[in-house]
Amino acid sequence: MNVLIVHAHPEPASFCSALCQAAAEHFRGLGASVEVSDLHAMGFDPVASERDFTERADADYLVYALEQRNAVKHGLLQPDIQAEIDKVRRCDLLILSFPVYWYSMPALLKGWIDRVFVSGLFYGGRRIFDQGGMRGKRALVCATLGGRERMFSAEGIHDDLRELFRPLLKGTLGYTGFDVLEPFFAYHVPYLDDAARGAILGDWRQRLAGIDGQAPLEMPVTGDYDAHFEARIR
Amino acid sequence: MNVLIVHAHPEPASFCSALCQAAAEHFRGLGASVEVSDLHAMGFDPVASERDFTERADADYLVYALEQRNAVKHGLLQPDIQAEIDKVRRCDLLILSFPVYWYSMPALLKGWIDRVFVSGLFYGGRRIFDQGGMRGKRALVCATLGGRERMFSAEGIHDDLRELFRPLLKGTLGYTGFDVLEPFFAYHVPYLDDAARGAILGDWRQRLAGIDGQAPLEMPVTGDYDAHFEARIR
Repeated sequence: MNVLIVHAHPEPASFCSALCQAAAEHFRGLGASVEVSDLHAMGFDPVASERDFTERADADYLVYALEQRNAVKHGLLQPDIQAEIDKVRRCDLLILSFPVYWYSMPALLKGWIDRVFVSGLFYGGRRIFDQGGMRGKRALVCATLGGRERMFSAEGIHDDLRELFRPLLKGTLGYTGFDVLEPFFAYHVPYLDDAARGAILGDWRQRLAGIDGQAPLEMPVTGDYDAHFEARIR
Repeated sequence: MNVLIVHAHPEPASFCSALCQAAAEHFRGLGASVEVSDLHAMGFDPVASERDFTERADADYLVYALEQRNAVKHGLLQPDIQAEIDKVRRCDLLILSFPVYWYSMPALLKGWIDRVFVSGLFYGGRRIFDQGGMRGKRALVCATLGGRERMFSAEGIHDDLRELFRPLLKGTLGYTGFDVLEPFFAYHVPYLDDAARGAILGDWRQRLAGIDGQAPLEMPVTGDYDAHFEARIR
């Protein structure tokens, strides 16, 4: 089993980093091969731009997804992007580990997706969801935040966190074909003492130990939609 | 009236850039003062890190929001962040102009929010939504995408785009106190001919002309919730 953990926390001693390390240790303990892309440590560039291609199909006018498709076909992606793509292709399980910034990923991780989840390989045309390029792989989100769990509910001032993360869970991971597992959110982290943090680490290890028994989140099935994905046909 | 447009498209000749320019022209034509932060042209750094502070409250352990609060209080933010904060504080209307990447903003714009919407000024403690730091200002999202509008509906394979943008519309702009106007989405852009693009530009100019008559999106009212925002009390 190959595991890729993509981690984007600016503090190496953070609780988020501890969750990342616990996951790496867990899977190494099982004999799995584990790669970690620590985006801060790598100085990963998150800005999608014309610099991402060693040569362009249209050097005068940039349509980013079209250049991605061309670059995938002809091997024209910059090496930092290609290296991350290769890691994703090798993995059976992708774990995204990050602190919640504005009900979403930090820009550094968002940019890893913008640049690495290239059109023509991760998705393209009708190759989305059950036909997506990454089908057969699993994905798991592990995120830390300051808010309390009860703030995120029908009764609380914020919305359900899983709903707020739909652009990532469904729109990105599900869209590209991953089996997306129930996300793991560690709430209220900056205000917790060591015992409470230890309890969360225990929950996380238990989640990881039981990972093979977990059903993925439900995703659309492309065959249920018409040719333009505009209407359900069954 | 002061308008700030924050623009994050990598192609200066893109339709998204044309929408941005049309907005700048519209408001300049009305005698408004318009500033444009073209993040690609500026080479804006979107990565929130320990480098964002000229001095730190805790040099050994980074809690980003706590350092933001300390830096706001003591004037310790890096100049590139402070310059953007000053622009936001000057503006009456903030326009975010970008292409949709993965049902969200490009990392470059997400990082502008991560670094510029600092704790202690944009929000803090109970100062969110109607008590947020940016109350009295309006915000308008203008985004371009490849999908057709009918794909994003109860019948389509994707969810409603306004729902997918809840982390930005409610969780970021509403949360920090902006009156958030109905977003403007330009669909199917890469596949449209000049006439169709011209029609969208016309719609956009009409939206801008009627902006004073537009009711903002509904947001939570802090007084309706208990002290921890965990339950509605009325």
